[in-house]
Amino acid sequence: MTDQPSFDRMWDELTPIGRSAATGGYQRFAWTRTDHDLREWFAAQAADRGLSLTLDRAGNQWAWWGEPSSHQRGLVIGSHLDSVPDGGAFDGPLGVVSAFAAVDALRQQGFQPRRPIGVVNFGDEEGARFGIACAGSRLITGALPADRARALSDAEGTSMAAAMRASGLDPDGVGPDSETLDRIGCFVELHVEQGRGLVELDRPVAVGSQIWPHGRWRIELPGEANHAGTTRLADRRDPTLAYARLILAAREAAERRDSVATMGKVSVFPNGVNAIPSHVTAWLDARGPDAEQVLAVVAELDALASGAGGSLLQESWTEATGFDRDLSDRISAVLAGAPVLGTGAGHDAGILANAGVATAMLFVRNPTGISHSPAEHAELEDCHAGVRALTSVVAELAG
Amino acid sequence: MTDQPSFDRMWDELTPIGRSAATGGYQRFAWTRTDHDLREWFAAQAADRGLSLTLDRAGNQWAWWGEPSSHQRGLVIGSHLDSVPDGGAFDGPLGVVSAFAAVDALRQQGFQPRRPIGVVNFGDEEGARFGIACAGSRLITGALPADRARALSDAEGTSMAAAMRASGLDPDGVGPDSETLDRIGCFVELHVEQGRGLVELDRPVAVGSQIWPHGRWRIELPGEANHAGTTRLADRRDPTLAYARLILAAREAAERRDSVATMGKVSVFPNGVNAIPSHVTAWLDARGPDAEQVLAVVAELDALASGAGGSLLQESWTEATGFDRDLSDRISAVLAGAPVLGTGAGHDAGILANAGVATAMLFVRNPTGISHSPAEHAELEDCHAGVRALTSVVAELAG
Repeated sequence: MTDQPSFDRMWDELTPIGRSAATGGYQRFAWTRTDHDLREWFAAQAADRGLSLTLDRAGNQWAWWGEPSSHQRGLVIGSHLDSVPDGGAFDGPLGVVSAFAAVDALRQQGFQPRRPIGVVNFGDEEGARFGIACAGSRLITGALPADRARALSDAEGTSMAAAMRASGLDPDGVGPDSETLDRIGCFVELHVEQGRGLVELDRPVAVGSQIWPHGRWRIELPGEANHAGTTRLADRRDPTLAYARLILAAREAAERRDSVATMGKVSVFPNGVNAIPSHVTAWLDARGPDAEQVLAVVAELDALASGAGGSLLQESWTEATGFDRDLSDRISAVLAGAPVLGTGAGHDAGILANAGVATAMLFVRNPTGISHSPAEHAELEDCHAGVRALTSVVAELAG
Repeated sequence: MTDQPSFDRMWDELTPIGRSAATGGYQRFAWTRTDHDLREWFAAQAADRGLSLTLDRAGNQWAWWGEPSSHQRGLVIGSHLDSVPDGGAFDGPLGVVSAFAAVDALRQQGFQPRRPIGVVNFGDEEGARFGIACAGSRLITGALPADRARALSDAEGTSMAAAMRASGLDPDGVGPDSETLDRIGCFVELHVEQGRGLVELDRPVAVGSQIWPHGRWRIELPGEANHAGTTRLADRRDPTLAYARLILAAREAAERRDSVATMGKVSVFPNGVNAIPSHVTAWLDARGPDAEQVLAVVAELDALASGAGGSLLQESWTEATGFDRDLSDRISAVLAGAPVLGTGAGHDAGILANAGVATAMLFVRNPTGISHSPAEHAELEDCHAGVRALTSVVAELAG
């Protein structure tokens, strides 16, 4: 017995597609045969429900209940179906399946929408194949220039243009798509949480507040090459010591400043067992709900790196992306008492928000917080709670 | 004006051979054209002095003053002429040039040796091309099996056998050479110091006591792959934290235990800026004058790694190689007041000592302690002091 039979059926249909027998993880990359299978599945869902399927200029799929226009803009729900390498089942697909399930639930209730309702499958959200995350939404908003996208190539040297053409999409037609954007009144993306905020709060569903400000920095730490056997400790200029202190300081500062900091990438030169390194290059990823605090973490590390004769250089920085306040307030009112959480991850919802579309997000509890891994999980009853929440939100926004 | 004209002339002849114009460092690798030039230079020095040149079964060059035999064993001095990649001018050549200069000084004094005196150029001491250090001395002592040596290949896939053949040495003849070893009464290797012991003591020359016990360990630190943006600090299993603590603990423990410890090599997986690593593999190089203390450093790190759910595995361990006590005592008596220093580096003298040959070493002051680098240096007056010391030692041992 389940109260969401259509969710369960769709989930069972999707689960085998692109799954690795060896790891249980997913290899669902843009413009591949697996992606094609996923897109066919999406088209079939639209057809089964009598929704009209359209493709935009980047090949994103839209299934409309009703006829949206710039005069009668629609409410859009959905997410993406692609994955990171060896990713989980929920990141993306949970939002698409929940969207169709919400449509089914509303129809079962005899709901008559007062505005068009669309379900979207954004292409290439993870950027796993060509390196640019949210490529589908970035292309239609112009955040990713079409020329640049077409020239991107995958690990085997296949260009995005060639991959699109092989999948039946004319790459020359790719570009900003104001016609598609004009049909969107607002966008609500449901997504599995990628942390343990809801576990701690003991709640199944949250409303998103913002995508955290985030950035990347490169840290250069010079040393002096020397013999690991004969160089006395006092005579060494070993850059791994400063590197180690930075790793620990990043963690400590992030804890103190309610942020997260990660130093997950490093290059040690010459990287020999019996050689004191002449140079260490390390990278810092720092994010948090408050830009000032995140930048204070970075400033602490900058001071530490400078004190060691090194330097810290900003490679990227993105301010907080706030979701639409009015929209989120209406959603919070419908989901009375649902907690409000920010997220450190990027989403198509963030790209649309930056392009001026009113957007909101719902998060579904992730019992371990693990994401981008075969171990990513959400309990079925929490998924169902997500569908019920999304159904209520759609009823409110399109009712 | 110089009191060691032959040293200066030889040094000027050798300096240009194999030197990189770009870095000032040396590329003198075994069985290359540059090595051939160095060997021709050695042969010419022998001929100029009327010394008889012999090659042993590994192609090491011996220039004899007198006729050594198993009944009348000789005193051997010398070192090697090859270099590490982008190495310095002194590591190796200083010992060979000083040996010929000592012969010249003795002859100028009208010295009549009471036993044969040999100058040696050991081949492939650094192992820069084929990966095995002290290959020349290891081959003649049997520490490196000939079959294994012949099959070693360089970065371009050329085997040592092919490289030897191209240089005119029959690789099939390579192997243990008891005849050569039987000619050696004792071996005194003069070498530039590769640390700053003599700088601290404010002395130009030291007598070697031992090659420190040394080893390598691999440290495996497991973590849990996760999203760098969305995973709360409290939920992370980030192996870089344990790695950082190990780097700092290695340094601290080595300081406390009068040893040296280096963590110059690491492999982080997946090594992505926005990914909490799932695994870190790091390597520890630890050495010191006292094996018990070195192993105590390792034990501390083992405990730390285990506490973090990781492990520490020994990849190699070599006990202390002591030089001959009687020989060193006689040398110390000649060089009244010369300090006695151990070394953390391996040398051909260590290989011969392990094969039962009475060996000793002299070290010449290195003002920066830097070695295996273009910045490696010794002041000319210290080099001359080394020649004078070696001359006195030879006069004592062969007089």
